[in-house]
Amino acid sequence: MRIVFPLFDGFTALDLVGPYEILRMLPGAEIVLAGEGAGDAVRDGAGGLSLLATHARADVREADVLLVPGGPGARRDVDDPALLEWITAVHSTTRWTASVCTGALLLGAAGLLAGKTATTHWNAVRELESHGATYTPERVVAHPGDRLITGAGVSAGIDLAITLAARLASPAHAQAYQLALEYDPRPPYGAGSLATAPAEAKALLGVAEGSEA
Amino acid sequence: MRIVFPLFDGFTALDLVGPYEILRMLPGAEIVLAGEGAGDAVRDGAGGLSLLATHARADVREADVLLVPGGPGARRDVDDPALLEWITAVHSTTRWTASVCTGALLLGAAGLLAGKTATTHWNAVRELESHGATYTPERVVAHPGDRLITGAGVSAGIDLAITLAARLASPAHAQAYQLALEYDPRPPYGAGSLATAPAEAKALLGVAEGSEA
Repeated sequence: MRIVFPLFDGFTALDLVGPYEILRMLPGAEIVLAGEGAGDAVRDGAGGLSLLATHARADVREADVLLVPGGPGARRDVDDPALLEWITAVHSTTRWTASVCTGALLLGAAGLLAGKTATTHWNAVRELESHGATYTPERVVAHPGDRLITGAGVSAGIDLAITLAARLASPAHAQAYQLALEYDPRPPYGAGSLATAPAEAKALLGVAEGSEA
Repeated sequence: MRIVFPLFDGFTALDLVGPYEILRMLPGAEIVLAGEGAGDAVRDGAGGLSLLATHARADVREADVLLVPGGPGARRDVDDPALLEWITAVHSTTRWTASVCTGALLLGAAGLLAGKTATTHWNAVRELESHGATYTPERVVAHPGDRLITGAGVSAGIDLAITLAARLASPAHAQAYQLALEYDPRPPYGAGSLATAPAEAKALLGVAEGSEA
């Protein structure tokens, strides 16, 4: 089972590492981090860490699962035709093509989400809909017939990957992986969505009260 | 605000990257990934990815926050006196010293948890208690007077980091970071703890039904 993550400058690390920690446990999982060049150090959007690419994108033409992370680089790369063509080509070979956070903008820019419901980070709704998708404020949106699954912002990749593991292996496998990561979340606050975050927290992010996105 | 993560071969990536994505947003945050050598590529426990060390451990003597991840390498390195001495020395300078998952075993082996309550991954309870700590099945266990905070397995690092952000900045900052990561978890199953995971899932991990750890 070949799990491919594109690595681009400015990705959000948790968008990738959350799902990685679940999907790596799938039977026969092979992990591919596809950068411009094999061995490239690819810096995340916050600039605090770098992951090494295991493969060059040009050498990666097939995947069982293609998972596209978001980040500032995803917003930039909607204008990178080579990356979009690569996503489209690999998507044609997958069992599932997934995005986390603003990775959905890359699927959208590649034309894969036109006319479909999808989710993304709450601050990227208009950009997502500019690609012809309809934003749905759910944690995970799956279209099995189209082999497409999108997740909400950053931390939603863990929920998305458990959902995928249930479909690719079995619900018992997905539950085992959840237990292995002790994923029994206890957020200290109920501030994880625009609907629940207090005004003071939104103000710190520059979000006006009453804003939907 | 200097946030230091030791990087050792066989760390669990999500133990580090979950807290990283919260703590990097703290005002004035400087991120340090301290490996054997600066620029070293350090492979995770699953073997699927490598992070680059930003600094050599020998050059890192102070931290505002020291966060020790777990992983197979943490279990091995309880026998590495140089790493334990480094942890003890840096701990003497911190505002908070934290562990995620089996990172607690390194704090324990360094003698920091003797006589204290602490948490760790559910499969490391006996090892934790061998260092004189008392396992507490909570998501996060904080001892402000001792500047020590431990988190449960892997994914608990996100909850721990939000807890720390509230103490280091403010509850509003912590809530803003939670919103920025859209941390509004919706686990597809209630399988994230030994108490709630079904027998079939436990069996896949080799855990006998009725086992406490």
